[in-house]
Amino acid sequence: MISEVTARLADYVVATHQADLPAPVQREALRSLFNIIGCTLGGARHAVVDLTDLTLGAFAGPAQATLFGRGRRTDVLHAALINGLASSIYSFDDTHATAVVHPSGPVAAAVLALAELRPVSGADLLTAFALGVELTCRLCLAVTVPPAKGSMAWSGTGIAAGFGAAAAAGKLLGLDPARLRAAMGIALSQAGGFRAMHGTATTAFMPAHAGQTGLRAALLAEAGLTASQQALEGHYGFLSVFCDEPDLDALAGGLGERFEIRRNTYKPYPCGIVIHPIIDACLQLRGEGAVDPAAIAQVAIQASPGAMALCNRRNPQDELQAHVSLHHWTAVAFLRGTARIQDMDTETAVRDPALIAFQDKVEATLDPAMGSDATVVTVTMTDGAQHRCRIEHGIGSASNPMTDADLERKFVDLAEPVIGPDRTRALAARTWAMGGLADAGDLARSAG
Amino acid sequence: MISEVTARLADYVVATHQADLPAPVQREALRSLFNIIGCTLGGARHAVVDLTDLTLGAFAGPAQATLFGRGRRTDVLHAALINGLASSIYSFDDTHATAVVHPSGPVAAAVLALAELRPVSGADLLTAFALGVELTCRLCLAVTVPPAKGSMAWSGTGIAAGFGAAAAAGKLLGLDPARLRAAMGIALSQAGGFRAMHGTATTAFMPAHAGQTGLRAALLAEAGLTASQQALEGHYGFLSVFCDEPDLDALAGGLGERFEIRRNTYKPYPCGIVIHPIIDACLQLRGEGAVDPAAIAQVAIQASPGAMALCNRRNPQDELQAHVSLHHWTAVAFLRGTARIQDMDTETAVRDPALIAFQDKVEATLDPAMGSDATVVTVTMTDGAQHRCRIEHGIGSASNPMTDADLERKFVDLAEPVIGPDRTRALAARTWAMGGLADAGDLARSAG
Repeated sequence: MISEVTARLADYVVATHQADLPAPVQREALRSLFNIIGCTLGGARHAVVDLTDLTLGAFAGPAQATLFGRGRRTDVLHAALINGLASSIYSFDDTHATAVVHPSGPVAAAVLALAELRPVSGADLLTAFALGVELTCRLCLAVTVPPAKGSMAWSGTGIAAGFGAAAAAGKLLGLDPARLRAAMGIALSQAGGFRAMHGTATTAFMPAHAGQTGLRAALLAEAGLTASQQALEGHYGFLSVFCDEPDLDALAGGLGERFEIRRNTYKPYPCGIVIHPIIDACLQLRGEGAVDPAAIAQVAIQASPGAMALCNRRNPQDELQAHVSLHHWTAVAFLRGTARIQDMDTETAVRDPALIAFQDKVEATLDPAMGSDATVVTVTMTDGAQHRCRIEHGIGSASNPMTDADLERKFVDLAEPVIGPDRTRALAARTWAMGGLADAGDLARSAG
Repeated sequence: MISEVTARLADYVVATHQADLPAPVQREALRSLFNIIGCTLGGARHAVVDLTDLTLGAFAGPAQATLFGRGRRTDVLHAALINGLASSIYSFDDTHATAVVHPSGPVAAAVLALAELRPVSGADLLTAFALGVELTCRLCLAVTVPPAKGSMAWSGTGIAAGFGAAAAAGKLLGLDPARLRAAMGIALSQAGGFRAMHGTATTAFMPAHAGQTGLRAALLAEAGLTASQQALEGHYGFLSVFCDEPDLDALAGGLGERFEIRRNTYKPYPCGIVIHPIIDACLQLRGEGAVDPAAIAQVAIQASPGAMALCNRRNPQDELQAHVSLHHWTAVAFLRGTARIQDMDTETAVRDPALIAFQDKVEATLDPAMGSDATVVTVTMTDGAQHRCRIEHGIGSASNPMTDADLERKFVDLAEPVIGPDRTRALAARTWAMGGLADAGDLARSAG
C-alpha cells in the first residue's frame, strides 16, 4: 500500500461526493463547522489577532474575502491566515479524540475564504470540509499516535492540517487527481511546527499558517505548479522524515468506511483539552457543596500522560500560558466555579492573587493508565476530610459529547459580544441550514 | 550549552557589527550576494516564476518592493517569495561546502525586499545578510551532517533558511534579543521541506517559502508576536524533532571566530552541485581531444554518496528533473561540450534524441569514499580504448573556488538576457560597491 498512498488519498477525495458521506458523517462535519465558526468569531478581536492583522495587513491584497468579526475584507490568503488564527487563539476549537490535532480551524479558514473567490454551494463546501478534516486527522494519527512510532513533540495541527486544507481547497477547485497530488505535495513540503510553542502566540499561528499554506498550495497546483506525485510515501518523502514508522492503515485504510471525523470533539472550556476532565472534576466537587473552596488544604490530581506532558505548568504568566496550565484551571474551577474565556484574562484572572495562591495547593502526578479524557481529583480539607471525584469521560469527549444545544450555547457565548445578538442568531441558523445554501460565500459575508 | 543555544545565537546577531566581521568574511558575503543577484535575474522570467507570480499576484498587496527582472513592484512578502523562487529555479545558486544547503537565495530575498520598506545602508544590509547565511549554514550542519545524527531526506534549505532569513531581517529591524528569539521561534515553527520534491517546481518553492516566512517572522516579532524563547533547544523544540542527535558545536561553537560563510561555494553549472565534478571530468576528457563523443561505448562514473543519493536519475522528462540528473549532464558535456541553462531546456535539450540515447551508455556506481566535489570518470571507446579523468575538487568547490572574474561572467550571462547589457554592467558595479551605498534599496530598484 505504501507505494500508492498519496494517489489513494487523492483519488478518494476526487471521487467522493456528498451522497457518499453517511448521514452521521455529514452531521458531524456540520457540527465541526458550526463550532469553529463560533470559535472564529469569539477570537476575532483578540489582541494577537489584532496585532497580526495590523502587521501583515500592510502587505495584504484586494478585498476578496471576509475577516470574521472584524468588519473588513481582504485577500483570500490573508483572510485564511487571520480567520484561522482567530479560530484557535483561545484554544477553544476542536480536537480529534485520539490524535491530538485540531483539524477544523485551518480547513474551515481555507474553504470559507475560497468560497468567496470561487462560488460554491453550501453542500459542496461541507463535503470538501469533511474530507479535509478527515485527511488531517488520518495524517496526524499516521505519524504521531501509536502504533506509529513518531514524536509527540510535533504540533499535530502544524504538520497535518495544511495537507487537509489543500485537499479540501483542491476538492472545491475541482482539481484532477494529478493536480490534487501536487497540491498535497506542495502543502506537505511546507508542513512543520512543534509543541515548544505552547504558551505563546505562535501556538495559534501554526494552524493559521497551515490553513493558509494549504489553500495556497491548491491554488498553485491548479495553475500548474508541480510537486512530487508521491509526497507522502516517496523516497525522502513526508513519511520518511516525520515518523520512524508510520501507521499506514490509519492513513489510508477503510477510506469511505471508517470516518475519523466521527471522533471529532468540541471543547466546553477554552484551554488544552487534556485539562478538561480535571475541570469537570473540580466543578463537580465544588457543585456538590461539600467542598468549601476556602477550606481546601490540598488538591491531588491523577493526571493522564497527555495532561502531564502538555499542561503541567504552575503559575502561568499570561493568558497564553494559562491555556496550557492545569494548575490555573483547577484554581479557577474551585474558586470561581466557572471555566470561561474571561477566566484566563491576563489582568483579571492570571494575575488574580487568590488564583495564584491556590495553585500552590495543587499537585498533579502521572497515572500512565489514565485516558486523556479522564482523571481522579482528591481534595484534602484543612480538617483532614477528603473528597474524591473520578471522571471517566469528560464533557465534550467522544464518549460524552457536547449536544447540538451545548454547541449552540457556546456559539452564542462566543459570537454575541462580537457581532451582537441579532446577527449571531441569524448566522447560527444559516450555518445549521447551510446544506441548502446556493452560495456558501453568504456564510462568511454574514459573519464580517 | 544546549540550555541557552537560541539565546546565544540571538545575542550574537544583535551584538555583531560590520567591524566584527573579518575582511575575508565580508568579502565572501559580498561574493555570495553578487552571485545570488545574478541568479535571481537569470531566473526572473522562468515559466515557474511566471506561473507563481501570476497566481499569487492576485492576492498581493501594494507596490513596496521590486520583483527582480520583472518590471513590476509588489508587496515585500510577495517580492521575497518570487525573488527567492527566481534565485533557485535553475539550481544555479550557491551551496555550503559540507551542509548541502543553499543559503543565499532565501536570505537575500528577505533582506533585499525589506530594504525597500525600511531604508538601510549597503554596509548594514551586507552585515545582516552575512549573519543570516552564517546561521542558515550552522543550523543545517547541526541537524543533517555527521556527527549530527539526522536525516538527509530533509531539505536543508527548507528547514534552515527561514531561520537565517528571520535572523537577517531581525538584525535589519534592530530587534532586541527577546524579539529576535521570538522571530527565530516563529520562523522555526514554519520550517519544513524534504527532498522528495527534487525534480519538480516545489524544489525551488521551498527556499522561496523559507525566505518569505523568515521575513514575515521578523516583522511579526517586531510587532510583538510571541514565541518560545528556546525554540531550538526547548522541550519539544526544533532540535528534538528534526534530528536524533544535533551537533551543538556546529550550531553555536566558535561564534565570531569560525565563519561557515567562508565555505560557501558558487555553481558554475545550473544543476545539482554533486553533479559538478562529473561535468568537469567529462568536459576535460572531451577537451583533450582524445575522446571523440561519437565513438564512446560506455561512461563509467565513480560517484560520491551525495551524487548517488540525489542525482542518479536517467532520462529526466523535463527541465526540472534534468536539474538533478547526472546522466543528462554527462550526455550534455560530451555531446555539446557545454553545461549552460539552455542545455536543460525541456524542448531543445531534455527531449534531444541524441542526449537521450547517449544516457544509455552512462553508468554511475557508488564510491563511498568519494568526496562530494570529486569523481573518477572512465570512458570506454568502441575500439576498446579507455580514457580516465579524476577530479579531486570540481570547479566552484571550496578547494577550487570560482574567482571574482568567474562570478562576473556568470552574472553577465544570467542578467544580460533579462535586463540588457547596460543595466547589467551598472548593476554589477553597484553591487560590488554596495558597501558604500547609503540606501541599499537602490540595489533592488535598479534590478527591476
